[in-house]
Amino acid sequence: MDKIPVAVLGATGAVGQRFAQLLAGHPWFEIVALAASDRSAGRPYGDACNWVIPGDPADDLLDLAVSPLEPTLPAKLIFSALPSSVAREIEPAFAAAGYVVCSNASAFRYEDDVPLLIPEINADHMAMIERQRANRGWPGLIVTSPNCTTTGIALPLKPLDDAFGLERVFVTSMQAISGAGYPGVASLDILGNVIPYIDGEEEKVELETQLLLGHIRDNERSPGDFVVSAHTNRVPVLDGHTVCMSLGFRNPPSVEEAIAVLEDFRGQHIVREMPSAPERPLIVRREPDRPQPRRDRDAEGGMAISIGRVRPCTLLDLRMVTVSHNTLRGAASGAILNAELLVASGYVD
Amino acid sequence: MDKIPVAVLGATGAVGQRFAQLLAGHPWFEIVALAASDRSAGRPYGDACNWVIPGDPADDLLDLAVSPLEPTLPAKLIFSALPSSVAREIEPAFAAAGYVVCSNASAFRYEDDVPLLIPEINADHMAMIERQRANRGWPGLIVTSPNCTTTGIALPLKPLDDAFGLERVFVTSMQAISGAGYPGVASLDILGNVIPYIDGEEEKVELETQLLLGHIRDNERSPGDFVVSAHTNRVPVLDGHTVCMSLGFRNPPSVEEAIAVLEDFRGQHIVREMPSAPERPLIVRREPDRPQPRRDRDAEGGMAISIGRVRPCTLLDLRMVTVSHNTLRGAASGAILNAELLVASGYVD
Amino acid sequence: MDKIPVAVLGATGAVGQRFAQLLAGHPWFEIVALAASDRSAGRPYGDACNWVIPGDPADDLLDLAVSPLEPTLPAKLIFSALPSSVAREIEPAFAAAGYVVCSNASAFRYEDDVPLLIPEINADHMAMIERQRANRGWPGLIVTSPNCTTTGIALPLKPLDDAFGLERVFVTSMQAISGAGYPGVASLDILGNVIPYIDGEEEKVELETQLLLGHIRDNERSPGDFVVSAHTNRVPVLDGHTVCMSLGFRNPPSVEEAIAVLEDFRGQHIVREMPSAPERPLIVRREPDRPQPRRDRDAEGGMAISIGRVRPCTLLDLRMVTVSHNTLRGAASGAILNAELLVASGYVD
Amino acid sequence: MDKIPVAVLGATGAVGQRFAQLLAGHPWFEIVALAASDRSAGRPYGDACNWVIPGDPADDLLDLAVSPLEPTLPAKLIFSALPSSVAREIEPAFAAAGYVVCSNASAFRYEDDVPLLIPEINADHMAMIERQRANRGWPGLIVTSPNCTTTGIALPLKPLDDAFGLERVFVTSMQAISGAGYPGVASLDILGNVIPYIDGEEEKVELETQLLLGHIRDNERSPGDFVVSAHTNRVPVLDGHTVCMSLGFRNPPSVEEAIAVLEDFRGQHIVREMPSAPERPLIVRREPDRPQPRRDRDAEGGMAISIGRVRPCTLLDLRMVTVSHNTLRGAASGAILNAELLVASGYVD
Repeated sequence: MDKIPVAVLGATGAVGQRFAQLLAGHPWFEIVALAASDRSAGRPYGDACNWVIPGDPADDLLDLAVSPLEPTLPAKLIFSALPSSVAREIEPAFAAAGYVVCSNASAFRYEDDVPLLIPEINADHMAMIERQRANRGWPGLIVTSPNCTTTGIALPLKPLDDAFGLERVFVTSMQAISGAGYPGVASLDILGNVIPYIDGEEEKVELETQLLLGHIRDNERSPGDFVVSAHTNRVPVLDGHTVCMSLGFRNPPSVEEAIAVLEDFRGQHIVREMPSAPERPLIVRREPDRPQPRRDRDAEGGMAISIGRVRPCTLLDLRMVTVSHNTLRGAASGAILNAELLVASGYVD
Repeated sequence: MDKIPVAVLGATGAVGQRFAQLLAGHPWFEIVALAASDRSAGRPYGDACNWVIPGDPADDLLDLAVSPLEPTLPAKLIFSALPSSVAREIEPAFAAAGYVVCSNASAFRYEDDVPLLIPEINADHMAMIERQRANRGWPGLIVTSPNCTTTGIALPLKPLDDAFGLERVFVTSMQAISGAGYPGVASLDILGNVIPYIDGEEEKVELETQLLLGHIRDNERSPGDFVVSAHTNRVPVLDGHTVCMSLGFRNPPSVEEAIAVLEDFRGQHIVREMPSAPERPLIVRREPDRPQPRRDRDAEGGMAISIGRVRPCTLLDLRMVTVSHNTLRGAASGAILNAELLVASGYVD
Repeated sequence: MDKIPVAVLGATGAVGQRFAQLLAGHPWFEIVALAASDRSAGRPYGDACNWVIPGDPADDLLDLAVSPLEPTLPAKLIFSALPSSVAREIEPAFAAAGYVVCSNASAFRYEDDVPLLIPEINADHMAMIERQRANRGWPGLIVTSPNCTTTGIALPLKPLDDAFGLERVFVTSMQAISGAGYPGVASLDILGNVIPYIDGEEEKVELETQLLLGHIRDNERSPGDFVVSAHTNRVPVLDGHTVCMSLGFRNPPSVEEAIAVLEDFRGQHIVREMPSAPERPLIVRREPDRPQPRRDRDAEGGMAISIGRVRPCTLLDLRMVTVSHNTLRGAASGAILNAELLVASGYVD
Repeated sequence: MDKIPVAVLGATGAVGQRFAQLLAGHPWFEIVALAASDRSAGRPYGDACNWVIPGDPADDLLDLAVSPLEPTLPAKLIFSALPSSVAREIEPAFAAAGYVVCSNASAFRYEDDVPLLIPEINADHMAMIERQRANRGWPGLIVTSPNCTTTGIALPLKPLDDAFGLERVFVTSMQAISGAGYPGVASLDILGNVIPYIDGEEEKVELETQLLLGHIRDNERSPGDFVVSAHTNRVPVLDGHTVCMSLGFRNPPSVEEAIAVLEDFRGQHIVREMPSAPERPLIVRREPDRPQPRRDRDAEGGMAISIGRVRPCTLLDLRMVTVSHNTLRGAASGAILNAELLVASGYVD
């Protein structure tokens, strides 16, 4: 088939650079525009960008003139890596102009008629798009991907919730510096240190986990029926968020039952046709000291969540540790996966 | 008064070096012997030691010949920085020979007749020494100090337990590399990484917290009536253990009530005469992003626990974060504080 | 004697915070004003500052209202921690108004009539002040302290130059992140990385070393008669600059002769009366693997340069390694030492 | 063609693990044996190994029983990752038994009749094998690859020496922790620190650079006619050695002439047929702040040396910075490249 023309909004920032890098070799998509703020618009992408992510940019993007953030791009599908304050203005303009917008920003994540998607666990939340169109009258649409920390929490919790009925979730995160973008965290703050605070992060993790595991009826989403308590921390790790969890269930499983459910999980059926979907979204490790962010973040190309130390909890039922790649699965690759889901589901023509 | 002659067992290791450094300027104690394994015995301390802790060793210790680990040292008070397997043999030999042993090892921490002490919170546990003498017939005695992580947990929990009745404790630690001794953690394992596992640590934290907050009746200790669930992690921090906590109480306090109790805490009365005791054992910080290990570990000379982010918990009652200096309050200085308590209580004559 | 009233310009930045911290307990000086840009002026210092350096600010400064950067401060002596572009305008205004300005900025470092001072090695360069007054007609004056990296190079080179006639100097620096101020280096750039470039740094090191070791005749300075080649790098170290050097001399010394000269060095006589001067400005270490920035930066309160690995060079005559504390000796403490020199020399009345 | 059966000696260590990982997918070679010390021999490789390098081991090696270090392996080509003290005994035994040994150990690097090889720059040194066979009477042979730091120095110096006549070389290295193997450098020594000493490293760099750029006449090697002065340092970087260089030449080039020579370099003709050879062994970067180890070590799959900051030197002629991947090009991949050279040259039948 012909490749679908796509554009990236906020293409010069750290997440935008990841989009540009990942989409450069994508089997379904072809970058036709890289858009950014007025400061960059008109300049060659290679000049406008201070390239900060690992690897070099694709050669053929270096000379592409950066487009302004206006809904006149020759693309069908839009990836938004805009800051949320900007996304709040720009993304609706694109949806209103008929574009399909896959956003990594938090601006519309908590709206009743905007799906917050992880394809393996809640592809059925796409039904909310009907409400969105009814409410807003857009010929296009917006779907969102979750906060980078939430992704590594909600994905493994979904099969456990389905099987055993999740009631209570304690999470403590140890998050990589790349989650704060560039320049982000000052080295004087984090070298040899822990910062036990990330602005707004705990609220996002608690709310988004409930939304992601919510249930759809009549195109309406009701949140998951469990409570989450989050402690979020920044640690001197480059990429890869680590989360310690304690979990309580309505029907508590044994350790081996929980591991079996996690290992068997493949996600909703539609994802198997999508090129960026990992073969195994959840990988359970048996070593006593895994997963570790530096050693496990790249599992399945950074798309799998690694899980380890599944063991009983003295207070709730189970404890475990997860590691996810925050700038791949938790950001750019996650949004690309959402776009693949929309294509596979017929939302992009 | 004349200074009390003291000796250090295991003086060449990292904790032993801290003892040597801290005791060199102590107002009550005077080092008369530095003892270590046969490999070092007889050599000048300066040669036998590969000095790994910050600061240089005291000049007048460099030429002191290292003594063997035999209970014939010209000291009254013994500080033990021995590995637990060695401590199990050597410490009883010293107690049997009449020495007062303040141990940093875990060998005897969990015995029914050996006090596990933090002077500010459970000086009354010294009553267990009567049982110890009755059971073992030693003219000397052994008291122990807790695991470095437990110290920063139990100390702030004590006044909260007294005031509000602790029921449930979730803790997730982010521990400094110095907690593993030298050479300890390989740099290839921890640089830019998190290791979500420390052998035996979670069990120690869960049990020791209950013991430290236990109650004494008839010289017998009953453990604290609450449950602890611990996740312990190693992070690339030099010194200073950070702990995220969620707490449930019988009589849940408001945030401000909890802060008031923490800030008012000064510890059991006897500690005010002890030279190493901090003026304020607990320091509550109001900044949103404190405490941090690199910036707060040295509060009150590394003897105070810094507490911050006291806030409600969505699942239990309160959340907070603590930072403690693991090699000072959590190791050598903690054991010295125990020795001061024993002196002030008349156990050393 | 009564303390001399002093003020800090640029008091809210990282170097300004160091000045405030160090001067708070100074035996000769008393802070009467903390000045900063209009954004901060009028606010309490505690509010205007995002405190980023180790240790807490002195309590009695927290409520001091920040002054504007105008030459109407009730002080005699001014410490400038201004950015160089601002210093170029503001410092002359203060000198013209009669203040004695000790600047840490580079704005006037390279002027023919402004002394660039390290008291131990070139107190006689104060003679340039006569030229400055003749040229500029200021009732006050400006003296400057060198770049943080140069300090750790020039200080040990001075006695070697005096004794053996320096001809050629190769230096490669490995510089701490604190040298770049706050927020300074992004953690995404430096964590687990080396940045082999610091803008303008190599030129500063090469020129300033020649100026600092220059000779004074008739109040005029001629630069040192040797050539310097510098490679400067940023490494993931918090504080403490490390420099590898290869040195060529007119009269090449043996290793032991060089060590003897370094160890005997005490600096020009006048420094012995100055309270911030270290007893030994140069400390030679004999261990094979010292000096190291984390272990040696605090020698003599961060005022001594630690030197090690003195050994022959296969190309020139000697190789060695130095470590200096870049934010103490190399910045705030260095400027305070200059102020003490001016006081001891009668320039402050 | 059928794949050539190969074995790895010292297969359980860090370099051995790299060999196993890289050879698992090699187009010419097939692992038939993984050999290690008696402690591991007989155990499945997956059990005997504490896997410490990035990525997981190949599945089909996990169950392979580890062989003893005896010259009875069913292989033709042997990769040695043995410690040098062991290599000194074992490698000759294999050569004497007819095996072709490609060693990463230093044991035989400095022998007059053992080639020290980097295929792109001195494939003609294979002529020394004739001398080796004449001297030692081995039906097999030993070739060696250089120290990891030397590799990143000698490779870019070769075309510059050929074009401009190298006379003097100053190098200061900033070396990654992985260069010290596992467990290697203690985290307490290197976190937030620089260690300005690596045992024996400076001597290796100085000598090996001369040997690698030596000239062959009558199967005999005479060392390069230039002098090297090396300062070697350990820094907190995971992988990738950074080297600052100052260079003096007989016919000094301009910066642009030097860059042209570096960019044009492709190496001796035979390497173009070898599967592990990079297309461009030397990559010149024009950004002011590159190369950096974390961002450039993986250029051309870790096989290219990245060069930057080519600029004049105030003392010699040119300054520049190089980055090389110390465990790929500088260790396992370098030895594999040597093996490919021997195969392409007919030494393995």
